[in-house]
Order: sequence, then structure tokens, then C-alpha cells
Amino acid sequence: MQGFPPPVDKRIMQPESDFFSFPKLRWTVCHIRELMPTTQVSRGLAAPSSLDYAMPDAAEERTGTDVETMVNPILRDEINNLTFTPLNSETEMSWRESLDANYTDGLLVMHKGQVVYEYYSGCLDESRQHAAMSMTKSLTGLLAEILVAEGTLDDTARVDTVVPELAGSAFGDATVRQVMDMTTALQLSENYADPNADIWQYSRAASPLPKPADYSGPNGYFDYLQTVEKDGEHGETFGYRTVNSDALGWIISRTSGDAVSTLLSERIWQHIGAEQDAYMTVDALGTPFAGGGLSAGLRDLARIGQLMLNQGQAGDRQVFPADVVASIEGGGNQEAFAKAGYSTLPGASYRSMWWVLHNENGAYAARGVHGQTIYVDPTAEMVIVRFASFPQASNSLIDPTSLPAYAALADWLLQR
Amino acid sequence: MQGFPPPVDKRIMQPESDFFSFPKLRWTVCHIRELMPTTQVSRGLAAPSSLDYAMPDAAEERTGTDVETMVNPILRDEINNLTFTPLNSETEMSWRESLDANYTDGLLVMHKGQVVYEYYSGCLDESRQHAAMSMTKSLTGLLAEILVAEGTLDDTARVDTVVPELAGSAFGDATVRQVMDMTTALQLSENYADPNADIWQYSRAASPLPKPADYSGPNGYFDYLQTVEKDGEHGETFGYRTVNSDALGWIISRTSGDAVSTLLSERIWQHIGAEQDAYMTVDALGTPFAGGGLSAGLRDLARIGQLMLNQGQAGDRQVFPADVVASIEGGGNQEAFAKAGYSTLPGASYRSMWWVLHNENGAYAARGVHGQTIYVDPTAEMVIVRFASFPQASNSLIDPTSLPAYAALADWLLQR
Repeated sequence: MQGFPPPVDKRIMQPESDFFSFPKLRWTVCHIRELMPTTQVSRGLAAPSSLDYAMPDAAEERTGTDVETMVNPILRDEINNLTFTPLNSETEMSWRESLDANYTDGLLVMHKGQVVYEYYSGCLDESRQHAAMSMTKSLTGLLAEILVAEGTLDDTARVDTVVPELAGSAFGDATVRQVMDMTTALQLSENYADPNADIWQYSRAASPLPKPADYSGPNGYFDYLQTVEKDGEHGETFGYRTVNSDALGWIISRTSGDAVSTLLSERIWQHIGAEQDAYMTVDALGTPFAGGGLSAGLRDLARIGQLMLNQGQAGDRQVFPADVVASIEGGGNQEAFAKAGYSTLPGASYRSMWWVLHNENGAYAARGVHGQTIYVDPTAEMVIVRFASFPQASNSLIDPTSLPAYAALADWLLQR
Repeated sequence: MQGFPPPVDKRIMQPESDFFSFPKLRWTVCHIRELMPTTQVSRGLAAPSSLDYAMPDAAEERTGTDVETMVNPILRDEINNLTFTPLNSETEMSWRESLDANYTDGLLVMHKGQVVYEYYSGCLDESRQHAAMSMTKSLTGLLAEILVAEGTLDDTARVDTVVPELAGSAFGDATVRQVMDMTTALQLSENYADPNADIWQYSRAASPLPKPADYSGPNGYFDYLQTVEKDGEHGETFGYRTVNSDALGWIISRTSGDAVSTLLSERIWQHIGAEQDAYMTVDALGTPFAGGGLSAGLRDLARIGQLMLNQGQAGDRQVFPADVVASIEGGGNQEAFAKAGYSTLPGASYRSMWWVLHNENGAYAARGVHGQTIYVDPTAEMVIVRFASFPQASNSLIDPTSLPAYAALADWLLQR
């Protein structure tokens, strides 16, 4: 979208099926708010905190916010030249090559609390926000864990005791924990490639645009959630369904009295020294999309990854109890997860809407379609945040050239 | 809009005719972005500058951003008790009473660069943005004056030499200056109370929502502007028409290569120590609404008022040439203005989309429907910024209880 006006064949507009298609997607991921109504996730009014940048051996004075002046060029080159073997491949790839292979829009690595790598491409730079996609779920799950740790939300309670409106739906007799870990048994398909999948019907209900005159379906997230039917027994199988995150959004909003966007501001964004406000898309009733609506700055998500690595501590402040991170790090039910058949994540689990790898480093991640991730490696004391606009949605196509790269970088950092 | 979900009879949603109706308006003015797509006006990533608050005689240490701890209570009480006589009235009113009479959502007064009064009510607080309505025009006009002062835009040039697409429209043979001062002769009605007025047809063209299937009109600001027809001779009569501001938005975007929102960020917002990003609504092609789409924080508009008072200087930095303010302070054609018959603004003029009062203090103002203003009084070294949600649009209903209040405050401050 360049020019005043942009030429007809370059316009990116409603409907959603157009603006999320590749290559338009590459622009859209930085411009969600220009296409849809959104609500603010305020950083507050205080000065942002400076990120600490690792210095070269001959330390130089570095000031300002320009990326080129802040990143240590020696470290950057060393990391760019790291090599790894992609999954299902025999040909080595360099770290730098993997960025292009994954349509990476931004990538930031922190090691022991210092930035060692920062990269922007495509539509992104350090002063823009990018769609976080389903990483939003992990922040909704984090907020729920905070309420659980504080004792205001009982994760063993039945959902219908918290949100009575969900009594007649599949969620009614599930526990809050089953919703948090997505082991609810729901009659839903979430195949993004199928235009008739329930996820797209959900999308129509959730659209903030005025409904067509002949539309008689549910209006908004909360309406739709009440129509979801049960299929099987809760607690047995991991099933990745976005509606769980929006049900959890409803649960934490009813519990706290605050919208998810307000909670994100008051519980997280105002306490991490964020450089930018974030924002969330909303439905026609103003309900934030707890399952995928967040857009945020790369550095601010790095601050959140670091907050996780630091057990809820930012600077001198304990933002939330360390128990919150312990619960997520401990992981979910690996047996229930295995039934879902994620070939690139053997042995993994899903806990409070975070993907727990159960690898030797104890890594866990927030993940979103088209290649978004916050990857926390406690052993290597490493946080990787990546925004991307990979043409296809599924991370199974992106994991082969990213998960081994992350492991290689962790190994290298551990040996430094 | 409270509750999860808000009750049916309390919902504020599309269409625009609903959400801008009173009393819903009182909520809407702080939540435009939740109802429409918007684009960011970035403050950048640096720390905000602190506003300087006038201290009581016994100066106390004041920190943080909470209003109650920062405003000088002695000054506040003295200003609250000031009295004035409203236009066309014989009954005195106090300053404090006028705030309620005008449905004031926020009001901040600076005197000699220090905050002497700060007030929030309704939907607003110090960390939210409020609709600036037609004050947006004044910022578009300010940007144009900056380009003129820098020599990149010739205000004597014909519009069609800058934007050839406007050659066939009423704007084509107008000068840039005539557009800036709204002395173009246009065949348009802008009576907000009439649902068939051209301004609402403009609104349909400008709507970011997908057009109805049977819609065959123009799509977006730029399309619509090309359809505006001429009625009379340019340069003779002031005619308050929002399309002039959007034509000017096109002119400055074509000249600079940047969208109005980008210019506002790069020329103003990043240099005033703004506390918050601002934002602008956009049409379906992403064009910011240069005639009325801005929402911003009260304190940040106060910083802009102070920037005007200081002849373009913010701190140690000359943000734009002093000539810019001189041009606006000098005013426009009073004779052309008088023909438009604004009863509450005798002797005034309109210059670069600012209302110049030509009163003894040399005051001038940005003004927006429902009571928005940035009021700059150079003689009293006073800046007043007000956000409001008065039930009716026309400022002629609000001026009687605000313009005399501002004059009374100026007199009082001059005597301090």
C-alpha cells in the first residue's frame, strides 16, 4: 500500500480472506489496526526501560534507539554464521539463511538479559507493531495463571460456576484448567486451509463489521462460545482450538472485572518498561480477541520473554508470583498432547496456552501461525522472539528451519 | 459499554449514526478506535518530557503522573471560583460550573509554560485519547504551513499543479492558500443535523467498512474529492467545508511522500515529548481522515498549544520555523469570514485551518464539533485545551459559556 492513493492492483482491503492472503499478508501483519477496529493495551505514561545490549570486546558508547548503532556487530556476524541441520534434511543451513527461509519480519535474541541479536525486515522496524497471532493465547493463559496464583481464580472449578452463560455449551462441565490446557472435548474443526471450517464461522461471528442483513448467527465471541458443542470427554486429548482461549478470556474478565486488553496493560505492559503500546482486535461489542488479536512491538515481547525467564521479575519488581512460571515450565499432559500428532514437537505438551517442549533445556514457547514465537530456553538463559509472515499458516512448515536453529544458538551461547 | 458482554440496551456499535448520537457520544469520543480502523501517529520510542506544574507558594515535592498529586490545589480552587458572564446572558457563571455546562471531558490550562489547571471527567483520564474532531484540520493546516515555510509547497500554486487528479474538480483552479484558508467556492452542504447533507455522503464514501453491494459512489477521500463541483468564485467567501482539509491532506501527502499520520508523527509528535501515541481514522484505502480523524491525549495537545505559543520551539529545539506561527497569528481574510455569519465569532478569520479571533490578546484556536478546542492566547501566555462531548455538534452553542470564560481566565492570569 504505497502512493496517494495506492494503485488499484496494490490495494489491501476488507474482506479478511483478501488481506490475510499471501503476499498481501506481508503488509497486513504490520497494519492490522488499519483494517479492523482495535483496543489499546496501554504501556502507561512512564519512560520506557532501556534494553541492555551486549557490548563488543572493545566496548563503545551506544546511544539512541537505532538498531544499527545498538547491536553488537561482532556477535551479530557470529550468530549469522552459525549453522544447523533443518529437520528432515541433510543439507546444512546458516542462521542468516533461515531468516529468509522463514519470511522473518523481526527477530531478537536475549542472552543473560542482554540483547545479542536484533533483526528487522519486511514491514517491520523497531517502532512498529506486528501481529502476534496465537501468541495472544499464551498471554491470555499467563493472565489466567496470575489470577490462579493470586487465589482469585480456581483452576479446578467448573467453567459454568465462573461463567453461568456457558452452562449449556461444551465448556460448561469442563474445568478451568482443561480450558487453560486445551484438553476440552469440542465439536469443532480448526483447519485454516478449509474455508468452511468452524474457525471461519467463528470468524464471521467475531467480525467487528456490521453483519449482513440475512445473517442470523451469533454476534461476537461470547455469543459464539455458547453454541460450541461437546464431542467426547474432557481431559483426555489435547485439541488446539482457539475458542478455548476466548472462553478463558471470558473467564478471566468475569473474574477480574476487566477486559483482557485492560488486564494485559495493568498486569504486564505497565510493568515491563514497554516502549510501545500494544493493541488487540475486537468484535462488534468491543470484546478483545483473546485467542489471536494482539499486535505488539518486537522488543516488548522480548521484555515479556525475559520476564518469564526471570520468574516474573522485571528489574527490582516482582510483577507476578514465580509460581506462575513454574506452572507453565512444568508442562501439561504429554500423553494427551501426543494424541494430537504434532510431528515437529515430539514429547511436547501444552500448558496454560504455552507450548512446552520438554527438551533437555526445558524450553517453552508462545507460538502463532505464519511463524510467530516467543521461545524461552531457561538452561541457555536465552529468549528468542520472532515475528514472521510465512506464506502458509502452519508452524509445522516453519519448525524444520527454526527449532534446530534455536537449539544450535542455545548450544553456542552455553559455550560462550 | 460495561460488562462481559455489555447488556443489549447499553451496546454502542456501528453504524456511525448510532455511536455518534447522544448520550452514546459521551463514551464514543474516547473509544473511536474500537469502532473503526485507525492508523498510528507514533510518539517514537524516547522517554516523554515532563510537563512543568505550577507549585503552590509552599512548594511541595510532586512526582508521578497522577493528576491529583500534580495540580496545584490553590490555583485550581482559585480558577474554579472565577466568574464570567456568558454571551447573551445576564447571570454570572463560575469557571467550575462552565465545565459541566459544556460536558467537558478534559481541560488543561498552561500559563507561561506551566500547568495551572487540569481536569478530567466523563470517559477521559490522563492516559486515554479523545476524539479531536475538526481540531484535526488545524494540525493538517499546520503541516501545510510547515511545508510552505520550508519552501517545498507553494501556497500560491494552483491545486491541479500539485495534484493533477483534482483538475476536473472544484479544487483544480483554486490556489493551495485558498484551500488552506477555506475560501474555495464549493457546491456542498455541511449541515451535520441534516442526514442528507453532502457531508454524510462524504462520510459514506469515506467509510472504511466494505461498501454495500449496490453502492456505486466514490470509494475513499481521494475519490470523493474529485467529484466536488465549483459554485461561485474562489477567494471571496469563507466556507467551512471539511473536504478542504482532505484536499489539503492529499496536497501535503503528494508533496512530501508521506501520509498525514506519518507527517504528524515525524514533524510534531516525535518532537514534543508526547506521552502517548495519537491515532487517525482511515478510509477503506488506508487514507487518514485529515479533516477530523485524530484522537489524542489531552496533555499532548497542550504540548502542541505550547509549541504554537513558543513560536515552534519545544525545549531547546526549533521544531518548525517561527514563520509558521506568524502566518497563522496574522489571520486570514476577515471580510471573507464575516460573510459566513458566525455570531459568536465577530471579527474573526480562518487561517491555515485555525480560527483567529482578532481580539485584543491575539488569540487563535483549533476547534472541533461537540466542544473540542486548543485555545492559544499569546498576550496572556496561556494555552487552554479542552475535550468535550456536548450533545449538539455546533460550537455556537458552546461558545457562550466558554469563550467568555477563557477571556476571564486570561485577564486573571495577566493580573497574577
